[in-house]
Amino acid sequence: MNDKLLKQYGEMAVRAGVNIQPGQTLIINAPITASDLVHHCANAAYDAGAKEVVVHYSDEKLSRIKMERTSQETLCDIKPWIQASYLDYIKSEGRAAILSITGGDPEIYKDIDVKKVNAASLAKMNALSEYRDYTMASRIQWCVIAVPSEGWAKKVFPELSAEEAVEQLWQTIFKVSHVEGDAVQNWKIYAKQRAVRRDKINAMKLKELHFTSSNGTDLHVGLADDRVWGGVSEYNEQGVEFIPNMPTEELFTAPHKDRVNGVVYGTKPYVYNGSLIEDFVLKFKDGKVVDFDAKSGKELLAELLNTDEGSSRIGEVALVPASSPINKENVLFYETLFDENAACHIALGQGYPGTVEGGEKMTTNQLLEKGVNDSVVHEDVMVGSADMKVTGICENGETVLIFENGEWVF
Amino acid sequence: MNDKLLKQYGEMAVRAGVNIQPGQTLIINAPITASDLVHHCANAAYDAGAKEVVVHYSDEKLSRIKMERTSQETLCDIKPWIQASYLDYIKSEGRAAILSITGGDPEIYKDIDVKKVNAASLAKMNALSEYRDYTMASRIQWCVIAVPSEGWAKKVFPELSAEEAVEQLWQTIFKVSHVEGDAVQNWKIYAKQRAVRRDKINAMKLKELHFTSSNGTDLHVGLADDRVWGGVSEYNEQGVEFIPNMPTEELFTAPHKDRVNGVVYGTKPYVYNGSLIEDFVLKFKDGKVVDFDAKSGKELLAELLNTDEGSSRIGEVALVPASSPINKENVLFYETLFDENAACHIALGQGYPGTVEGGEKMTTNQLLEKGVNDSVVHEDVMVGSADMKVTGICENGETVLIFENGEWVF
Repeated sequence: MNDKLLKQYGEMAVRAGVNIQPGQTLIINAPITASDLVHHCANAAYDAGAKEVVVHYSDEKLSRIKMERTSQETLCDIKPWIQASYLDYIKSEGRAAILSITGGDPEIYKDIDVKKVNAASLAKMNALSEYRDYTMASRIQWCVIAVPSEGWAKKVFPELSAEEAVEQLWQTIFKVSHVEGDAVQNWKIYAKQRAVRRDKINAMKLKELHFTSSNGTDLHVGLADDRVWGGVSEYNEQGVEFIPNMPTEELFTAPHKDRVNGVVYGTKPYVYNGSLIEDFVLKFKDGKVVDFDAKSGKELLAELLNTDEGSSRIGEVALVPASSPINKENVLFYETLFDENAACHIALGQGYPGTVEGGEKMTTNQLLEKGVNDSVVHEDVMVGSADMKVTGICENGETVLIFENGEWVF
Repeated sequence: MNDKLLKQYGEMAVRAGVNIQPGQTLIINAPITASDLVHHCANAAYDAGAKEVVVHYSDEKLSRIKMERTSQETLCDIKPWIQASYLDYIKSEGRAAILSITGGDPEIYKDIDVKKVNAASLAKMNALSEYRDYTMASRIQWCVIAVPSEGWAKKVFPELSAEEAVEQLWQTIFKVSHVEGDAVQNWKIYAKQRAVRRDKINAMKLKELHFTSSNGTDLHVGLADDRVWGGVSEYNEQGVEFIPNMPTEELFTAPHKDRVNGVVYGTKPYVYNGSLIEDFVLKFKDGKVVDFDAKSGKELLAELLNTDEGSSRIGEVALVPASSPINKENVLFYETLFDENAACHIALGQGYPGTVEGGEKMTTNQLLEKGVNDSVVHEDVMVGSADMKVTGICENGETVLIFENGEWVF
């Protein structure tokens, strides 16, 4: 893999992604296999005037051993130092920004009891809730990018050798992440272009979306009160612009947690806690999933839906055209960061405070009143298809066509 | 490198080294490049009934970037979570055991301002003092082993390619660490054998050692009151046996912090905080270094000696014969874990509470009264030579020959 492109990728993540500010601390969550990129990111951050770069390394093979061989009780006993390893910086002057590098083996926890895996995951989410609130509400700058692991690359390109698969996946990531050339500048242009359509859809004052497809999907998604549409960049509470996902192709907003009705079919496999859910269907009534099925991973899907009150409702709805550059790669990524940007999707669980007006400053109860869902999970599942039609109903009762045959009509 | 031997090495460290007990947590400090060994250690720990294995990964290339590019003020601002990442486990039921994997590039901080490096190191030592007390006083089980890094291996075998050097260093480590065959059993036998000489030297009731060598060394080391000699294994405060260093060839005890006089010449280069000190000489009066020199690293040595009141006095004196299996490899390791077991040595700085009778339960002041030195540092420097003579003076005034031409006489 080309070290020059890797360096550009790191600079892109640090300067355009988290957009590190002079005097800020950058925290990087990274797999140990991504250390070369971590070094580039660290140098890019110091070049931009960062105060300190702190790296939390993870090791998926160790995580697998731990998940298999540690009791559920111990896995759920999350020690305070783990959240402190973020809050010690976030709460200090100048705040911190978080760069998370994803890209592990999508089936790292395959064949381990899903109840145990989910209990451990849930315990961690709860133990880190104060930290997660900083990112969910965009109080601090954060960004997610990916680095191929062998396990992931082999899943995406099973016909290639491990080495070739990793190389191919790197090329694909570089391409869809606009890394070639001046990556930082590429993203500035890209964010401006996308803002045009975002502003258009905001001006429509949509109160409901209706999704239909030949696969049987027929879903009415009422939107939250005072919803706003977002895409590409956001602003932290001090007004610093950042890009939470790289790549990103979606425009998204808050559904109303009680106003979703109908049936929706999954169009891509979905990785949850290191195992696969494939060919699922969800039936909603008044916002809640009242029936569901899946060709594989049904038990896992049941666990997800039963996590808490909000995990069987949706917190995000996002529009992505079938012509998205990521979808055009014609690759199934088994990684939400990419697959969610290749198809329209909904997210089971928590909504983003930033998707209703003034939401970042609201309490959970105030957000719930607007219709923004609350949960410990936020799991994007792909439902977009090549012939998807999306119709919008505006606040004034008017009906507008938004997607036809999987594409924007405006 | 042979994965079977690597597995045995991990089992040795976990079962004979820290001797993990059922229900205990094992914390492993490891470089990211040692992940294969970490996985073996984790499995060995779970096989032995460990409750959980927690790994703190480090990345020396990142450490170098951080040391170069972070301000001294920020480097010295050690956040509380770092000590908590140990104490959260050590203080919980069942205690924890610590396995540290060393073996980084000995000159990782070469050409960085030594004052900055030392200030950062000192700040970390101070911030982790509560944790370090647990290991220094052997309240918990701990063990240090090594894994070759490229930088280290190339320093030890400069004539080989990086790959060959790493392989050669692995072979050497496996050999001197008794890994071949049943490594755990090897160490049991070895510990018993060594206990015989340890018991003999304890029975001599030595109050002073006198080191002389043709290189000019002429050093009188008065011993602490009620000193005891240790070697190979120790016992934590719950009576669990463990081996703190693998390999280990030394018998060691506490010098009296005020009763060291004369001159001593270094016989091996010494790595301090990622830089080298070579060909040093130390002159002691009433326990304190009153003059010193070094062919290289003199400024660094000055920093070390000036760290605090105790860093210019010694806290440990150790006897290692020239015929030590490690010395017989005829390799300069540039790594204290090995070099200190190839030659007699003294340690500047803190003494081990366990080297005076009942010391583990004494306060710092009580230990100082016995003559056990106190400091934030503990740095072993090698002074043994092929023609070293060591004479002992017993409490009853008798003189006994201990080493002649670098070898035990009994």
